[in-house]
Amino acid sequence: MTTFDDIVPTLDRLAIEVPSWAYGNSGTRFRVFSTPGTPRTPQEKIADAAKVHELTGLAPVVALHIPWDTVDDYAELRRFANDHGVDLGTINSNTFQDDAYKLGSLTHTDAAVRRQAIDHHLRCIEVMDATGSRDLKIWLADGTNYPGQGDMRARQDRLHESLAEIYAHLGDAQRMVLEYKFFEPAFYHTDVPDWGTSYAQVSALGDKAFVCLDTGHHAPGTNIEFIVAQLLRLGKLGSFDFNSRFYADDDLIVGAADPFQLFRIMVEVIRGGGLDEGSPVALMLDQCHNIEDKVPGQVRSVLNVQEMTARALLLDRDALGKAQDSGDVLAANEIFMDAFYTDVRPALAGYRESRGLPADPMAAYARSGYQAQIAAERVGGQQAGWGA
Amino acid sequence: MTTFDDIVPTLDRLAIEVPSWAYGNSGTRFRVFSTPGTPRTPQEKIADAAKVHELTGLAPVVALHIPWDTVDDYAELRRFANDHGVDLGTINSNTFQDDAYKLGSLTHTDAAVRRQAIDHHLRCIEVMDATGSRDLKIWLADGTNYPGQGDMRARQDRLHESLAEIYAHLGDAQRMVLEYKFFEPAFYHTDVPDWGTSYAQVSALGDKAFVCLDTGHHAPGTNIEFIVAQLLRLGKLGSFDFNSRFYADDDLIVGAADPFQLFRIMVEVIRGGGLDEGSPVALMLDQCHNIEDKVPGQVRSVLNVQEMTARALLLDRDALGKAQDSGDVLAANEIFMDAFYTDVRPALAGYRESRGLPADPMAAYARSGYQAQIAAERVGGQQAGWGA
Amino acid sequence: MTTFDDIVPTLDRLAIEVPSWAYGNSGTRFRVFSTPGTPRTPQEKIADAAKVHELTGLAPVVALHIPWDTVDDYAELRRFANDHGVDLGTINSNTFQDDAYKLGSLTHTDAAVRRQAIDHHLRCIEVMDATGSRDLKIWLADGTNYPGQGDMRARQDRLHESLAEIYAHLGDAQRMVLEYKFFEPAFYHTDVPDWGTSYAQVSALGDKAFVCLDTGHHAPGTNIEFIVAQLLRLGKLGSFDFNSRFYADDDLIVGAADPFQLFRIMVEVIRGGGLDEGSPVALMLDQCHNIEDKVPGQVRSVLNVQEMTARALLLDRDALGKAQDSGDVLAANEIFMDAFYTDVRPALAGYRESRGLPADPMAAYARSGYQAQIAAERVGGQQAGWGA
Amino acid sequence: MTTFDDIVPTLDRLAIEVPSWAYGNSGTRFRVFSTPGTPRTPQEKIADAAKVHELTGLAPVVALHIPWDTVDDYAELRRFANDHGVDLGTINSNTFQDDAYKLGSLTHTDAAVRRQAIDHHLRCIEVMDATGSRDLKIWLADGTNYPGQGDMRARQDRLHESLAEIYAHLGDAQRMVLEYKFFEPAFYHTDVPDWGTSYAQVSALGDKAFVCLDTGHHAPGTNIEFIVAQLLRLGKLGSFDFNSRFYADDDLIVGAADPFQLFRIMVEVIRGGGLDEGSPVALMLDQCHNIEDKVPGQVRSVLNVQEMTARALLLDRDALGKAQDSGDVLAANEIFMDAFYTDVRPALAGYRESRGLPADPMAAYARSGYQAQIAAERVGGQQAGWGA
Repeated sequence: MTTFDDIVPTLDRLAIEVPSWAYGNSGTRFRVFSTPGTPRTPQEKIADAAKVHELTGLAPVVALHIPWDTVDDYAELRRFANDHGVDLGTINSNTFQDDAYKLGSLTHTDAAVRRQAIDHHLRCIEVMDATGSRDLKIWLADGTNYPGQGDMRARQDRLHESLAEIYAHLGDAQRMVLEYKFFEPAFYHTDVPDWGTSYAQVSALGDKAFVCLDTGHHAPGTNIEFIVAQLLRLGKLGSFDFNSRFYADDDLIVGAADPFQLFRIMVEVIRGGGLDEGSPVALMLDQCHNIEDKVPGQVRSVLNVQEMTARALLLDRDALGKAQDSGDVLAANEIFMDAFYTDVRPALAGYRESRGLPADPMAAYARSGYQAQIAAERVGGQQAGWGA
Repeated sequence: MTTFDDIVPTLDRLAIEVPSWAYGNSGTRFRVFSTPGTPRTPQEKIADAAKVHELTGLAPVVALHIPWDTVDDYAELRRFANDHGVDLGTINSNTFQDDAYKLGSLTHTDAAVRRQAIDHHLRCIEVMDATGSRDLKIWLADGTNYPGQGDMRARQDRLHESLAEIYAHLGDAQRMVLEYKFFEPAFYHTDVPDWGTSYAQVSALGDKAFVCLDTGHHAPGTNIEFIVAQLLRLGKLGSFDFNSRFYADDDLIVGAADPFQLFRIMVEVIRGGGLDEGSPVALMLDQCHNIEDKVPGQVRSVLNVQEMTARALLLDRDALGKAQDSGDVLAANEIFMDAFYTDVRPALAGYRESRGLPADPMAAYARSGYQAQIAAERVGGQQAGWGA
Repeated sequence: MTTFDDIVPTLDRLAIEVPSWAYGNSGTRFRVFSTPGTPRTPQEKIADAAKVHELTGLAPVVALHIPWDTVDDYAELRRFANDHGVDLGTINSNTFQDDAYKLGSLTHTDAAVRRQAIDHHLRCIEVMDATGSRDLKIWLADGTNYPGQGDMRARQDRLHESLAEIYAHLGDAQRMVLEYKFFEPAFYHTDVPDWGTSYAQVSALGDKAFVCLDTGHHAPGTNIEFIVAQLLRLGKLGSFDFNSRFYADDDLIVGAADPFQLFRIMVEVIRGGGLDEGSPVALMLDQCHNIEDKVPGQVRSVLNVQEMTARALLLDRDALGKAQDSGDVLAANEIFMDAFYTDVRPALAGYRESRGLPADPMAAYARSGYQAQIAAERVGGQQAGWGA
Repeated sequence: MTTFDDIVPTLDRLAIEVPSWAYGNSGTRFRVFSTPGTPRTPQEKIADAAKVHELTGLAPVVALHIPWDTVDDYAELRRFANDHGVDLGTINSNTFQDDAYKLGSLTHTDAAVRRQAIDHHLRCIEVMDATGSRDLKIWLADGTNYPGQGDMRARQDRLHESLAEIYAHLGDAQRMVLEYKFFEPAFYHTDVPDWGTSYAQVSALGDKAFVCLDTGHHAPGTNIEFIVAQLLRLGKLGSFDFNSRFYADDDLIVGAADPFQLFRIMVEVIRGGGLDEGSPVALMLDQCHNIEDKVPGQVRSVLNVQEMTARALLLDRDALGKAQDSGDVLAANEIFMDAFYTDVRPALAGYRESRGLPADPMAAYARSGYQAQIAAERVGGQQAGWGA
């Protein structure tokens, strides 16, 4: 039997990277609703992220998005972050909001557009040098809407060429993670639609290239924890983009739509060494708080990951292995579910207090007055948002 | 055997309503790309729509969206349309772009918000009075993103109350059509997610309320032509929003993703009397030309509907009925496919010419210089787009 | 705050109907694996069901399937059941295993086949008279595999006629429940594919006809609890077929694939009065224990329903309503999740003991030696199974 | 412009492997309907397959399934086939119908079960030696139904070990093709669920291992032609299992559900060299004629592949490339659709006659009296079917 004490060392290691853009406005194609207190600068986003970490101890790193978080002095931004108790993490590139990229970026038929997209990534690597970031994350909006619109095969070849040039610029301690996505914003085909494509592409690059798994980027019915297990087995799982969804890429709070799925994913992460000391797997959030408040939305998100991680860690793997080996389907499932059904919330509250954190970070946030404060202070200027 | 001559009278009746917003910019949550020549006013949208009708003879009516097409004088707008050879059609309401509607409109917990949304629809009915429109089309973005966020049952009751008040204001010759949608922009639940809900709601209102079927608003694997058949059988199919999709509500050109599905839909429309003289079924487009040119995108769309309608009309229903009655599965399918596989394009080209229309409207548009003309003329001002 | 004591009266009312066929062999089209101890007669199935009830107190009624459970003397079978501490429940008809039904039953083009199918249902009503059953459950395999194979509209009309004749034979205290199913065994279209169709059909019959909702019979992404809420609102939810699935109609143990979904469904059942005294809603299981032992598979199933019902009953609806009314999305969701995350298993163990039941029915079953006993005794003869 | 004459050489090369089991009875888990004339022996299945080839010239090779087609003397069976004008092709293994395989075969926790499954494959290789078959096709039913039931990661490792042993026994001219499947008969996870897994596994084996793509084995919305393009690019597409589906693995006649999808797949096959002289890609059918007659069902299937191949070959790739390079979305799509919409049936009828084949093979089959003949002759004995 695993006890809560047994799992504390791993819980202590749990660190979730939060994305700067989660604090800005987001929405659907129909409407982006704005909210009082929304950050207007990268610094304000980092301040919000730091609040999440202050309350939870779970979010020590902030991922940036270029050009959304462009500043003149990244070393200065890093100091700002450090002063607020957090660090800068993954650099996310963006080749989907410039008119040139309407029909593609790294895969475009026009060499000049590919050049522009490659150069953008080279600049991102320069940012990484300044921020000390390890990972360059590439998510491509590339794809087509209509059959015949593009030559899917040639696009794949061009993708390899473009990635190879970017890869060649990575420093020794830097990595590339390539995200795949089933659909959207392209509807007929996307150029990196599945883990197999991302895996084939990064394998052709080398040891510093990995797959990024966004939990919302799969077809309905896909067994995501299987992909987690497979990529860990192949040594190519670089990072997660956590969120949840009911149907498409809804980008809801991780664990909100199907907490049991999040549990199963964490079980495989642990099984494959993804929470071991020195694990190469980065856990990130990638969500859109379209209608809920953003800072507590992020607090809720990292708590959800922590809670499901704790349950997954409590899984009695010895007993499970015995039931599996003996072919006892019902016993194996019961042992598995027992971990999921165990209410870890009281133990986690105590654990937090023992670390000088609030027992209930959501309540602590509500009490803190932070939301009212930022709503009062952040008036005027341009609220941050997708594309802003 | 049905010949092309036999189907000409029905083809002559075919009229497709085009939406004013199809001519404006649209996009995804990631980016709305702008295009030279995009209309800046309702009049420019109507001019574009009139061009589609001029080239195809298929699009005599333009649907408006309030408030996107708000003008001071709707009677004047109607004359403008008539002068351009088209008429004004369905009035589409909009309760998804005002901050008040963030958590709902006709279903909102707050009576003041419901009042605002109801009043908006009453104003739409006044517009209908001025434009002579028959149909008020209601698509609601109402729904929730998180389990527990709303009381789905109470929202359904409030929806009925709100609709009943709107319905009571309809004139004798006016109708309400209630659209359903599986998901988006709400992700956990939508308040009118399926035809059953729309049917239950409009049935509770009365004879002037109908269902609107948007072909992109279903779960994967849904047999849409079955729903068409069922709603026609129940006397409650009011209108179509045509488009196509590969996965979600992609709003691609109708027939682009699965032409055989469009064929099957038209077969059921015809089977159920939907193209008969005096049919209550309005055929509309509802698409987003995110990356392709908008006017020829609409031309292609109405041509696709015409082509699949022609194939569906050519179906040898006598032979089909015999094969069905005898249980000859392969023969019945072969007769069905024979209609689909018949290349009606040459006959339709001749048909168009006999009506004084260009044989190839796409080529005629390219030759017309219209695209270059509007790109040159429509400079400055605010391009129309979703929300603009 | 709701306490466990508050919910005990409702828990006491909870009764789940178990299907006789769950105790027989089942499988996929690829293979039906047989198991030692599988029943060979309706009596042995009832004995197994009685064991489930003995251990859980949750399964006092056994649903029968005709002709699989055909006996000469149904009154005698009822006495047998009563002697074992259970009662006979819903009668399930079967029009999918006779060669005549290859292309349909109640919807068939051939009047003779429809006659045969109608007569089968009339015989089922006679069985109901003898067993004292209230409900006749109709699930139809009717549908087509290829476009054009059948006239969907005419089949719908014939379905109405057939159902109307059957309905006319129902006694005053008897009901018909019509199940819908998205696909399988027909692949192109099924004649009752969705709740809307079932609702339209039963509404055309009268007050004694209801919809049966099988939780595995929906398209991916369908919000099932919404349908529950809607059907309860419309007064037409007659019964549930509980099971769970990852992708298709997997017929796995209820709650196994997505326990949170089962929780949400129970929340809406309670919200709509489905567990009130005198509720018209029958809760049934419909599962296939393809690889796990069948009796403990059923024990696990009824326990899962009980556990999720307990959590759903603990939902603090007052607090939830306040959060919903104030538009506090995160608070409402947290209140909702708090009920789900509450580990009711210790309280339920105590509750069971207070009723003279084993605290852990799964362990009690394992200890009972029942599985070894039936494996030893039930040798020879024809094991029960789908179609046997 | 490509003319029909241009494509004749490729059409002449088109050869589709038909599966012996398509001529036997098949069905769903609910019912297997039997048909007069169904073969009772491997020889009768081959005779039926030969009839398909006689009428179409498209089906010169018959795939066998072991143990369903077990005979004492495979060399003799090969002569029988040759005498009937066809050859023997791919050998399909079967590790899903023995009681030992209930919880897995090549992935089973029990080494004795893995041994049995490996040995079965070694025997299949012996059959290949006798029949002169090139390909060993492995489709595994391995997987689990319940979370926790198995250790997915360890199963993947065991799969590799088992495959490696089988692979080591392949002759120089022999190949292994590993099929993947999204779900069924396992519902929670399958051990080879997607092309990525199959690709990773066969890549770890060597140059004689390839992926088999069954068109029905994907999640809804999956862009299958993209996978075709990718696997051809990676040099790992070994063979197709053609069929069609609306929702799950329906195994309907190829092209029946979505002819446009089949067209798009053939476009990518051609684009990637899959129909070139010496191509490593085997085109096979894998279907279940549950309700339609089997021999004409197979005739229809190979004709569908031929028709869509002809349309795909007619695609004006030069014009398409220009439109793609210029970013003209609508023009590219129109060129693409023009090929699809071209009615090749008259030209194909002439082509057939020029090869001494019936212009209309379906009609020729109906006239041939073959169906009545086999119905009269094949009386008594055990009809072939899945598992028979």
